[in-house]
This record gives sequence, C-alpha cells and structure tokens, in this order.
Amino acid sequence: MSGYKRIGRELMHKGAIVELYKDKMQLDDGSVHDWDFLHHPGAAAVVPVDKDGNIIMVRQYRNALGRYTIELPAGGKNPDEDFETCALRELEEETGYKAGHHELLCDIFTTVALMDERIPIYLATDLIPTHQHLDEDEFLNVEKHSLDELVNMIFEGKLQDSKTICGILSYKAKKNL
Amino acid sequence: MSGYKRIGRELMHKGAIVELYKDKMQLDDGSVHDWDFLHHPGAAAVVPVDKDGNIIMVRQYRNALGRYTIELPAGGKNPDEDFETCALRELEEETGYKAGHHELLCDIFTTVALMDERIPIYLATDLIPTHQHLDEDEFLNVEKHSLDELVNMIFEGKLQDSKTICGILSYKAKKNL
Repeated sequence: MSGYKRIGRELMHKGAIVELYKDKMQLDDGSVHDWDFLHHPGAAAVVPVDKDGNIIMVRQYRNALGRYTIELPAGGKNPDEDFETCALRELEEETGYKAGHHELLCDIFTTVALMDERIPIYLATDLIPTHQHLDEDEFLNVEKHSLDELVNMIFEGKLQDSKTICGILSYKAKKNL
Repeated sequence: MSGYKRIGRELMHKGAIVELYKDKMQLDDGSVHDWDFLHHPGAAAVVPVDKDGNIIMVRQYRNALGRYTIELPAGGKNPDEDFETCALRELEEETGYKAGHHELLCDIFTTVALMDERIPIYLATDLIPTHQHLDEDEFLNVEKHSLDELVNMIFEGKLQDSKTICGILSYKAKKNL
C-alpha cells in the first residue's frame, strides 16, 4: 500500500522543456497536501569509448549551476524518436562520431521525488569520425579523458553530473575495469 | 566562453518544493530565448552498510513515476541544516539506524540542464539501532540487499533512481568491491 493517492493534477506552468503541475495528494489519514510534479520529455546519454580506451566528454557552461560542467554527450529526446535513436544522434551532433557498436549500460530517472525525466545511457565503441553539428543554442568543447581520470574526478567532487556519474561507473562495473 | 548570457529571470510558479523560473537567455548571435530554471533546496542520501556488508535500502511508491522504487535512504535538506546533518538525520528517520562512522562518497547535481538540486551522498558504517520516525506524508519499507544484488538490479533496469545508482556504484568503486 502506497499510503497516499492522487486526487487531482493541475498545470501551473508550461515551460520551454518541462511542465510543472500541482498534484493534490490524499494521505491515508484523509488529509490533503499539494505536491510538485514535473513532466519532462526525456533524454539519452552516451559513454563513447575510443580505440585507446579514452572516453569522449563535453564541457559546457550550465545556466542552472552558473558554471562549467564536464558531462557525457547527451540531449533531449525529440517527440518522434526513440531513446536509442536520440542517443546516437546526440553522440554524432555533439562529438562528430558515429557508433559502430552500442549497448545499453543503465536506464535512469534523474529526480524520482518530483520529475519523470528518464535518461537511458548507452556504451558506444568502434567510433567512426563524421561531423559535429551543434544546435544554435548549444556551445561545448569536446575533450578526452581516461576512465581512471574520470573516476578520480568523481571522488574529488570535480565531476558532479548525475547521468555522467551513472554512465561512467556503470561502464567501469559492467566491464570490470 | 559560454556562448550565451542570462539577461532576465522571472518566477513563474512557486511550488511546494521547487520554484520554476523563466530565464531570458541571449546567445552570442544576439537572439533571445526562454529557458527553464528550477530552484530546489537540495537533499542528501546515505549508503548504509551493516556489519555483514548488506546495504539498507527503502522501497516506496513514487507519485512522479506512478510506481514503486528502491532507493537509498535520502531526503530534503531543511533550511537550518547542512548536507551532512541532513544525511544523518534522514538515515535515522527512515531506517532507524545512527551511523558510527560516515564519509562522503560523491556529490551530485541530479539535473544540470535545468535544476540546481544538489545531493551529497555519504557512506555510513558501524550502524547503531535507534528508532525509525517517518514524516506524516512518508510511507516506506526498509529492506537489506547485498552489493552484488543491487549492482545486478542496476544492469537489469530494476533500480533506476540516479542518486541511488551514483551512491551504490561509488561505494563499489571507492572500496574496490
């Protein structure tokens, strides 16, 4: 038994990407509370590993944090595509590589307490160089790091993006690296 | 260079936990776009490991996903406390254990593309039984799992919460397990 049920949902604001709803929740004791719910269309991310075992990452300025971050290549899912297509498209757009081989590493929800944003994360290998083509509002630098470097950055607090940590550490654990 | 700058921020809705803003972003080409920004007060999570090496987890119904999840003990930070105090308080409230020893494993931002939610994640060992005391709107079951079981659940898509995956795999990598 969940302990509560939803008895209402009202759209409070439709943003550029997310929709914020006020959910009316009734607890088992009969009391009613307002909870936040955010709908997000979903995204996909990739751990691209080159022939030397280095991982291709992107560095960009993040408005929400007010600083630069280092992240896996990733991006929002278009309404007409599935997560796998999204992941491979974002890999090529952001880094200029196609994946010769790919497989699912893990499939995450970033913020289960209040948002339905889902991000499947794929391993990509056998990389084939093509062309980077960024969105008009996308500015990022591509850089390569060894797995050990990235793991150390996680423990030093220099790499803090949740999807990136999930992807890097899933790759390490799944491949016993 | 970031490629853009923020020239305005307007509160669109103040929810129960998050505030949703419309940011006016000016790109280097002069064009202006609306971006979403969500302010979240932050949270903290714990990887509690008992003397047998099992990890104490919580199972609860999540309204945002419409189903049950298995997660690390965690919860929102009160305005008057720091993240470490929050983590140890949530551990005791949700599981009924105090930590004899604790250390930081990793420090994540769940959704860097649009929200500032930060969740430091601590390892807790030398656990001391006390009493569980849940919030009035909190309903969860405590269960123990081995590290191997949880890692398998991640790869099988049965454990999908990002803070939980970051915590479990950080513990595995940091302690070479």
